[in-house]
Amino acid sequence: MGNSRRRRAASSLDDVAGNGLINRRALLGRGFAVAGAVGAAGAVTGAAAEPLTDATWSLKFGQNTPPVQSPSPYEKNVVRALSNPNGEFRNSHARTPHHLLGGTVTPASLHFSINHCGIPNINPAQHKLVIHGMVRQPLEFTLETLSRYPLVTRMAFVECAGNSAPMFSKVPLQTTVQMLHGLVSNSEWTGVPLATLLDEAGIDPNAKWLVAEGADGQMLTRSVPVKKAYDDALIAIYQNGEHLMPGNGYPMRLLLPGFQGNMNVKFVRRIKVINQPAYTYFETKNYSQILPGGKTWRFHFVMEVKSFITHPSFGTTLGQPGLYAISGVAYSGTGRISKVMVSADGGKSWGEAALQGPTHEKAFTRFVMPWRWDGQPAVLLSRAYDDGGNVQPLRAEFVAVRGEAVKPVTTPLAFPNQHYNSVTAWAVDSKGEIKHVYV
Amino acid sequence: MGNSRRRRAASSLDDVAGNGLINRRALLGRGFAVAGAVGAAGAVTGAAAEPLTDATWSLKFGQNTPPVQSPSPYEKNVVRALSNPNGEFRNSHARTPHHLLGGTVTPASLHFSINHCGIPNINPAQHKLVIHGMVRQPLEFTLETLSRYPLVTRMAFVECAGNSAPMFSKVPLQTTVQMLHGLVSNSEWTGVPLATLLDEAGIDPNAKWLVAEGADGQMLTRSVPVKKAYDDALIAIYQNGEHLMPGNGYPMRLLLPGFQGNMNVKFVRRIKVINQPAYTYFETKNYSQILPGGKTWRFHFVMEVKSFITHPSFGTTLGQPGLYAISGVAYSGTGRISKVMVSADGGKSWGEAALQGPTHEKAFTRFVMPWRWDGQPAVLLSRAYDDGGNVQPLRAEFVAVRGEAVKPVTTPLAFPNQHYNSVTAWAVDSKGEIKHVYV
Repeated sequence: MGNSRRRRAASSLDDVAGNGLINRRALLGRGFAVAGAVGAAGAVTGAAAEPLTDATWSLKFGQNTPPVQSPSPYEKNVVRALSNPNGEFRNSHARTPHHLLGGTVTPASLHFSINHCGIPNINPAQHKLVIHGMVRQPLEFTLETLSRYPLVTRMAFVECAGNSAPMFSKVPLQTTVQMLHGLVSNSEWTGVPLATLLDEAGIDPNAKWLVAEGADGQMLTRSVPVKKAYDDALIAIYQNGEHLMPGNGYPMRLLLPGFQGNMNVKFVRRIKVINQPAYTYFETKNYSQILPGGKTWRFHFVMEVKSFITHPSFGTTLGQPGLYAISGVAYSGTGRISKVMVSADGGKSWGEAALQGPTHEKAFTRFVMPWRWDGQPAVLLSRAYDDGGNVQPLRAEFVAVRGEAVKPVTTPLAFPNQHYNSVTAWAVDSKGEIKHVYV
Repeated sequence: MGNSRRRRAASSLDDVAGNGLINRRALLGRGFAVAGAVGAAGAVTGAAAEPLTDATWSLKFGQNTPPVQSPSPYEKNVVRALSNPNGEFRNSHARTPHHLLGGTVTPASLHFSINHCGIPNINPAQHKLVIHGMVRQPLEFTLETLSRYPLVTRMAFVECAGNSAPMFSKVPLQTTVQMLHGLVSNSEWTGVPLATLLDEAGIDPNAKWLVAEGADGQMLTRSVPVKKAYDDALIAIYQNGEHLMPGNGYPMRLLLPGFQGNMNVKFVRRIKVINQPAYTYFETKNYSQILPGGKTWRFHFVMEVKSFITHPSFGTTLGQPGLYAISGVAYSGTGRISKVMVSADGGKSWGEAALQGPTHEKAFTRFVMPWRWDGQPAVLLSRAYDDGGNVQPLRAEFVAVRGEAVKPVTTPLAFPNQHYNSVTAWAVDSKGEIKHVYV
C-alpha cells in the first residue's frame, strides 16, 4: 500500500491540449494525482478544517422512512422543463435536466417524454398487444403473459429526432443544455425480444415491414423494418428496474435501440406485419429531414453519434480559477462510443477524455476531462467517435450538408429541423460566466 | 434475414437439467426458439386475436405531462415494506420489493434504507465533510466543491449485513423475497474517489484505519481500513443519475463496494485518519457475527457471493403448465458473478442460467433460465459463483459453519444473525402455489 501510494504521488498533471486540459490518466486508478496539485493551486477545497460543530439535524430524531422515497426538498429545482405546463389540447414536451444530473442513468421520473395527445391512464389488466397481418397465427399478449418470457436487460438511450433542433438557429440561443438537448435520456430497459413474438406468430418470410400502433388517443403509428425486429428490438416492460412510467409507455412500449424516439411506440397495442411501409403521418409529414436543396431524408431512422458537455454549461458560473472537471454524455445509434475528444480552446487542440465504466452499445457513456482553468477566456467543446468509425461532425461540416433555419429561431421550443448531431460549444469568459457560442 | 430466421427455427428446446430446465442458449440472440414450442404447448399466449376494440383511454385526450413523473396508479403496490411505519423513536427498515422488479437497477425511490435515528433533512449548503487526524493538512469539502472533481461512475450493490437474517430460522418462514432479502439494492453511483481526497490531505504513511461518521442524530461511526479507501471507495454524490435520496445519505455518503451496508456511512461528515480501529458500537455490539461455538467474527466486512430467485417466488401462483422464465439477481462483494446455476428438482440436477448484459464487479447480475413446468411439484434453487472462485454455499454447508437461531424465529423482522448467503428454495406444488422450503 505504501508503494502504491508512492507511485500515485509520482504521476503528474501534464497538459495534453491547450488552455489547461490535463491527461485523462490523472483520474484513472492509481495514477491519479490531481489532489497534490489542487493543494498546490489552493483551489478546490477550503484551506483547513474549522472545529466541527453539530448542525441542527445532528441534534434530533429525523424524519420517518416512507414506503416510496423522494428527492430531498433541497432538490426541488431538479425537474423536467415543460412546453405545455397547463395541459392544453396540443402536444407536450418534458425535457431532462442534464446540467443537474451525473452518471449515465436518467432517473425514470426525469426521463424525457413527448405526448401528442396526453398520457393515457391504462389499466394493464385490460391492455393487449396484438400481432397480426402476414403471420401464420395472430396472437395477443398482456403484461402478465409477457412477464413469463425470458426477459432481456440492456442499457439504451431514447432520443427524439427533434432533440437539439434549436441548434439549427443561425444565432446560438442563450439557454441551458436541458433546453437544447433535453429530449434524450438513458435507461436500463427490460423486455421480450420482438423476434421471439414474431417467431411465435409465424412471420411470413416475404414480410418486410411492421406497423406499430400505440393505444393513446393519437394512436401514433410508425413503420419499422422487420430486420430491426430481428436485430435488437424489445417489447419493454421495465425501465430502470420498475414497470414503465406512464409518460414512457406504460404498460409496454416498442424499444428500437438507436432509432428515432417516436418509432419506439409507447403504449404499443398492435404490430401488423406487412410487405411495404405504411407511409403514416409521422413518417411523411413529420420526422422526415428536409435538406437545403429541398431533397428529403425519409425513413432516416438512426440517431447519429453525438455528445454534449453538461458540466460546466450555460447557467452555471465558475468561481475562482483552478481545477475543474469537464463532463458530459456521448452516445451513438450505430454502436459503442470509442472515444470522446475535448477542447478548451475552441477546437484548436484536443485531448482525449476518460470514459466511465463499460461502454454499452447505443447507450450513454459519461466522459470526464480534468481541466485547469487559468481565469482567461476558454471555449469548451466535445466530439464523440463510435466503434463503427462515425465521427460527430464539426458545425461547419454539419451546416454544409444540413443547412440552418431560414427564419430566425427565437425559442428553444421551435423545431426548424431534426437529427442535429454536431458539437455544442460553451464559451467561458474571464468572470467565469458561460455563453452558448458556435465555432 | 430469411436465412437467419431459418437458423433460429432449427434450434431446439433441449432440457439441460431435471424438471424442465431448458438450455440457456434458447434465449440468446438468433438461436432463440421458445416461440415455436410455446405455440406447440399452447401455453404462454392466448390462442388468437379478437377484433381490436378501442379502450376508453384510446378515445380521449390523456393526462397532463408533469415536471416529475411518477409510477402508474396501477403500480401502487410496488412499495418498500416498513418495519416502523408510524415513525416511532427507534430504528426503521424499508425493504426493496424484488418480486415486483426486473432488470438490475433498483429505482432510488425503492432502494432499501435503514435509519436508526430517522432521516435528517440536511441543507447541502451547510453540510461539510472534514478529513482530519493523521494527515498533513485537515480539509473540508462541500457538495459544491466535490462536484468540481473528476467523478467516477460505477454500478454497486449495497447490502445490510442483516439482510436475509430470517433465513437463520430453523423453520422456513412463509414470506416474500422482499421480506427475506429486501435489504439489498443496486444502483449506479457517481462520486469522488476517497483516495483523491486522502492524497490531497496528505495521509500519513503509518495510518492504517479511517473512522467515518455520519451527520444524522445517531452519528453512526465505523472503522474502515485505509487499504479499502485506496481500492475502490467513493464519496458518492449521485445515485442513478440524480443526487442521493435522503434515506440513502443525501447529500453525500461513503461508498465501500461489497462491504456491509452500515459501513457505507450515510450523511458522512467526518473521516478521521488513525492507526487502529475505533471499536465503535456498530463494530463491537452490532455487526459482529457470532458462530455456534461462541467465537465471533469481528471486522468481517465483505458481503459474500449470493443469489436468489425473484420470479417466480413466494406470493405468486403459476397458472397453467407450460413455459416460464426463472429469474433472479446474483452478486458478490468479492468481484464479478461468473455463473449462476439453477435447479428445478431441489438440487439433484443443475443447469447454467443466462446472465444479462455486462457483469459489473460488486453489482447485481440478472440471471434468466427458461423452464417448462409440467404441472408437477418442483423445487427451484439458484446458486451463484464469482470470478474469485467463491461459491454460494448449500444450506447444509452453511448451517454447519454458521448455525441456526437458538430461539424460534416468528417474524422476518427478527435479526438472529448476519451474513446469510446460502441458497433460497421455492417449492411449487401441483396447483402452482409457491412455498418457502429448505433443502
